[in-house]
Amino acid sequence: MKAIVALAGGVGAARFLEGLARLLPRRRTFIIGNTGDDAEMHGLHISPDLDTVTYTLAGVGDRKRGWGLQGDTFHCLAALGRFGLETWFQLSDGDFATHLYRTERLAQGVPLSGVTAEIAAAFGLRARLTPMSDQPVRTRILTRRGDLEFQTWFVKRRARDAVIGVRYAGAAEAVPAPGVLEAIGRARAVLVCPSNPLISIGPILAVPGIREALRATRAPVLAISPIVGGQALKGPAARMMKSMGMASSALQVARLYEDFLDIFVLDHADRSLAPAVEALGIQAVVTNTIMTGLRRKKALARAVLEVL
Amino acid sequence: MKAIVALAGGVGAARFLEGLARLLPRRRTFIIGNTGDDAEMHGLHISPDLDTVTYTLAGVGDRKRGWGLQGDTFHCLAALGRFGLETWFQLSDGDFATHLYRTERLAQGVPLSGVTAEIAAAFGLRARLTPMSDQPVRTRILTRRGDLEFQTWFVKRRARDAVIGVRYAGAAEAVPAPGVLEAIGRARAVLVCPSNPLISIGPILAVPGIREALRATRAPVLAISPIVGGQALKGPAARMMKSMGMASSALQVARLYEDFLDIFVLDHADRSLAPAVEALGIQAVVTNTIMTGLRRKKALARAVLEVL
Repeated sequence: MKAIVALAGGVGAARFLEGLARLLPRRRTFIIGNTGDDAEMHGLHISPDLDTVTYTLAGVGDRKRGWGLQGDTFHCLAALGRFGLETWFQLSDGDFATHLYRTERLAQGVPLSGVTAEIAAAFGLRARLTPMSDQPVRTRILTRRGDLEFQTWFVKRRARDAVIGVRYAGAAEAVPAPGVLEAIGRARAVLVCPSNPLISIGPILAVPGIREALRATRAPVLAISPIVGGQALKGPAARMMKSMGMASSALQVARLYEDFLDIFVLDHADRSLAPAVEALGIQAVVTNTIMTGLRRKKALARAVLEVL
Repeated sequence: MKAIVALAGGVGAARFLEGLARLLPRRRTFIIGNTGDDAEMHGLHISPDLDTVTYTLAGVGDRKRGWGLQGDTFHCLAALGRFGLETWFQLSDGDFATHLYRTERLAQGVPLSGVTAEIAAAFGLRARLTPMSDQPVRTRILTRRGDLEFQTWFVKRRARDAVIGVRYAGAAEAVPAPGVLEAIGRARAVLVCPSNPLISIGPILAVPGIREALRATRAPVLAISPIVGGQALKGPAARMMKSMGMASSALQVARLYEDFLDIFVLDHADRSLAPAVEALGIQAVVTNTIMTGLRRKKALARAVLEVL
């Protein structure tokens, strides 16, 4: 059975994939996760986007925040503060266990893709989740204050520095994780989740070979716009696009994917952009893309599956 | 001002030192801690005896157990169990922070003595606490099941395997931590805390130079018996001594320290052993050594200071 392949960032992707998983309970999806915002904190390797997808699909994620573990405590982090360490990156006690496990397995020589599969299995995921690459790729945010490490810009400084540019350090030397190119080549369909095109999907596309595989695959490639009415559903996407000199519109997202995209899903609020999307040679599909609650997540996934 | 130097294991030592610290609030003591039972768990460097002393003197230790942090949770450890990891070594969420900090600083090249001082400072300790050595010394327990790593024997297997012998792996290549030999040489007095002579004090004495410094110092060297009426106040000392072919008595402890000991403090229950201790050329002092409650801890410390 051919798989549905998904390119995924964090919260927005996880929400969409949760709806999709409810509709395809017996079908394994192949999720290619962003590791551009991975970080080293307190000596631990943290993969925020991979964990957000894992926790959400496992049903243990915090639904309100969209990230982290539901109902978890922050006692270890509070105790780290005693040593004068920076504690702006919120790590809960159960979350620390995930990072401890990942870090120890990496130190034992297991590649990130292997550890990610082990963690997904421990959380009972049916979907196959794999990082875009086993090599480190680190998103750097160029601002007037200089070149900032992603989490410093995003979490510590709350994304308040205007973004001039984005760089994916290490991408040129990275290779796609095992199975990634094959999955795209043999997919029934490829879905680009409603994630930030610059900092969630961008790092995945920057790994040499992945963008080419998306162009070459015979499977339809469908993206769901993370921008609705010129605003990001979640996060700084719209502001980043503006400060980088782009329009902050769904159409702009379609343009960023133009070379490999077959179908683009827009919200009703953006139905006026559909002709311009179609003018790019991309099929435009208008539906409700705002995922408040599981019912709407499933409705969006259903709309996507119907198009395919 | 000359310092009081103390050789310390874990729980028994910490209890005695807590009483001593109350009597000498303005005097800094120099505590040489055992690292023979240090271990690597989940990729972290754990120093159980150093932490027991730190937590106890900081007043944040769990008084009932004698180790760990008062009122702390075990959420991270529980979450590690999800990954199939062994969770028999009880690590609380706040405790993980200490080990994360220690491990990261060691990885940055700070020696264990430096990290230990930083942790002690973070907990507001007035006493100077230092490991016996910056090099790894690992106590190995010889049993009929073979040679067991200390924590595996002590915690995982609950010390149920009869001990044939004890080995301090790495001791021959270790050197005393900075300041240790100087502190012993210039001490006002050296106290050997009521700790297990084989697995708490033994590793300290096995570091080349320390035993010699105890013999050579002009300061009086005083030990408090951890054995009362043939039983250990805490832990497996008495059983170990028996299975290793020794008498499980306070007198036997005095014999183990005979070459450097000036004064030996026995419990009233062992007053009949005093003449035999004196026959070794060691001054015997009989008092109450059972430290139930802070009042008795202080009383024992007062008795020790009066002898000195």
